[in-house]
Amino acid sequence: MSLKGYTFSVVEAAIKKPGRKDLALIFSETPATAAAVFTTNAVKAAPVLLSAGRIAGGKAQALVVNSGNANACTGAQGMLDARETSRLLAAGLGIAEELVQVSSTGVIGVPLPMERLRNALPGLVAGCGSATIDDLAAAIMTTDTFPKAVQRTGCAAGVSYTVAGVAKGAGMIMPNMATMLSFVMTDAALAPELIDTLFRGAVDRSFNAITIDGDTSTNDTCLLMANGAAGTAVITAGSPEAEEFARLLDEVLLELAKLIVRDGEGATKFVEIRISGAASDADAKQAAMAVANSSLVKTAFFGQDANWGRIFAAVGYSGAKVDPDLLALWFDDVCMARAGVFSGGDAEAQGTEVLRKKEFRVQVDLGLGQGSATVYTSDLSHEYVSINADYRT
Amino acid sequence: MSLKGYTFSVVEAAIKKPGRKDLALIFSETPATAAAVFTTNAVKAAPVLLSAGRIAGGKAQALVVNSGNANACTGAQGMLDARETSRLLAAGLGIAEELVQVSSTGVIGVPLPMERLRNALPGLVAGCGSATIDDLAAAIMTTDTFPKAVQRTGCAAGVSYTVAGVAKGAGMIMPNMATMLSFVMTDAALAPELIDTLFRGAVDRSFNAITIDGDTSTNDTCLLMANGAAGTAVITAGSPEAEEFARLLDEVLLELAKLIVRDGEGATKFVEIRISGAASDADAKQAAMAVANSSLVKTAFFGQDANWGRIFAAVGYSGAKVDPDLLALWFDDVCMARAGVFSGGDAEAQGTEVLRKKEFRVQVDLGLGQGSATVYTSDLSHEYVSINADYRT
Repeated sequence: MSLKGYTFSVVEAAIKKPGRKDLALIFSETPATAAAVFTTNAVKAAPVLLSAGRIAGGKAQALVVNSGNANACTGAQGMLDARETSRLLAAGLGIAEELVQVSSTGVIGVPLPMERLRNALPGLVAGCGSATIDDLAAAIMTTDTFPKAVQRTGCAAGVSYTVAGVAKGAGMIMPNMATMLSFVMTDAALAPELIDTLFRGAVDRSFNAITIDGDTSTNDTCLLMANGAAGTAVITAGSPEAEEFARLLDEVLLELAKLIVRDGEGATKFVEIRISGAASDADAKQAAMAVANSSLVKTAFFGQDANWGRIFAAVGYSGAKVDPDLLALWFDDVCMARAGVFSGGDAEAQGTEVLRKKEFRVQVDLGLGQGSATVYTSDLSHEYVSINADYRT
Repeated sequence: MSLKGYTFSVVEAAIKKPGRKDLALIFSETPATAAAVFTTNAVKAAPVLLSAGRIAGGKAQALVVNSGNANACTGAQGMLDARETSRLLAAGLGIAEELVQVSSTGVIGVPLPMERLRNALPGLVAGCGSATIDDLAAAIMTTDTFPKAVQRTGCAAGVSYTVAGVAKGAGMIMPNMATMLSFVMTDAALAPELIDTLFRGAVDRSFNAITIDGDTSTNDTCLLMANGAAGTAVITAGSPEAEEFARLLDEVLLELAKLIVRDGEGATKFVEIRISGAASDADAKQAAMAVANSSLVKTAFFGQDANWGRIFAAVGYSGAKVDPDLLALWFDDVCMARAGVFSGGDAEAQGTEVLRKKEFRVQVDLGLGQGSATVYTSDLSHEYVSINADYRT
């Protein structure tokens, strides 16, 4: 399994603190067809604004990303710094500046240490090809405790290709993107008119279906590049090849998204929240997110307390259409409540057993219709508080 | 200062665990003009449904409230239990059942221990007049660490009267009511057409302007009774007396609301969040609530970390109209950021000093219009997680 036509480089620029690689580069030998999804936050970091403008052209050849500083809430200087970074990199690589995507993650409101970046960029360009995708995954980490990289191999008309992605993000994870970066590369060739729709759908089913704390960041970026270096024919909309590619892309993104939840700040549990029987899919997602974001529900998960009433309460205030007398709830396969009331008997003990596991499913059936949604979340632990109380120090 | 025409009683019914008073009664010598505001949660506890139906008549003479069990998600049995409680109490007091309001707070999904309630009710009725308002405030506590009671005295056309209230609630506090009970009594006489509007306005400016964890409960109830025992003339809409009464009511409710925030589960900080310069008041409230409910902002408060970027990020995703380049932020009187960027200089050190205090104000000006809103919240501490992880055990 090898991804063709991409090279990586990582260096230490000492952006936040010395001692770790915090500046990384993805370089495609040829300009790639590209699509990106950015944060919905009205307060967008400078690199997001810069990159969003460029991706409209549908092409990208390089991505430069730093961890440790978000370059957000940095005003006009922030945009100048993002532009300078991309200009220096483009010059070093000998490509058009418009083909450079810029990404940042880290503390908000502090200007980028440009002197250090300027010093580090030549080494970053020179190091092209010296790093692996795992090095890349490690270099973009902030509070993450492990690097996140996923690969899948597919085949289009007899030619095999690879889809590979990295992601970072451990807190501030909420649908519609969060302090979450994910860069996905394929050496398949994708038709420009296909890539955007396909990527947005995959992001919706993965990164937009996870939540850790309900906070949406200023910097979220999810980028897909397709450079065709594997030698596939161009995959076009509606073809069986497009279908297979979409399936692989979904797998890569969903696995990356789940890794982010598993690495949720201080998380001790990985919880799938499934809502069924909703009046609509939108209602189901709304209810699922309310449950997944409830501090009371999440602390009960942490405490391994089968406090199912809090789950019904969250569904009740979610805004989704709810008839309290129709609600049913399962922890994995243990039915905790039906027709709005506690199942009684052994449900309490059995439900508590489920919550003792590191990974379980919570399903609420609203009993109203065919709408359903699944989201993934973590518990809320002492450790989450510690990490976020002391993040900047 | 004494509230006329009301008597209180509290007993131990051992509803959740023995050793504390957990059943309380408010009794007005005569039927009082009354208004109430209940939870907006679609999943409403049985006593809420029962009491909401009755308050439509505009009269109440007694309130029976238990702590330790919410009687929520208890199905048809829950309603039978609430009705039986009110029937037994009405019979004991010799009043019409329709004049009894019923309230519950505590664990969700567990049937009320009716045998214990039946045994305790005669003693509750017999004890009428033996308890103080402070006993009442103590008996309705769940995770509260101190009882909350507030009184004010007013004067209408030379006749003095009292407004007195109790409240409970320490977690699951969120606008539109939360596991929050508040019972307010006055011995002034209020016109029936005045009481409802007046009370809803006061609740909006107080209990609907506080948030601890963003969770809205199944049981929230805020009740106002006015029995006229002080001998005032009936206070009618539009009169100067109505204005003074409204002011006193606001004071009582806002002070009770602030006490709830001060007692926020595990709270170490009391924070006023003020949004100004919004496009509308509604936008301002939305932005204020997003900041007040952000886990990342609240953990930064706990960590005394002047991480102002998180506050801008929360404003950015709140849904309020925002222009990032116009945002300004103060911690008390220290300007942390202006025109979207960090103030620099001594702001960091001075801002951190502010956050070291137990009580401070965070103000964000959106620079767009005249809309403003103030909400009150606490920080998110280790202790919050501990309390809620182990609540039922």
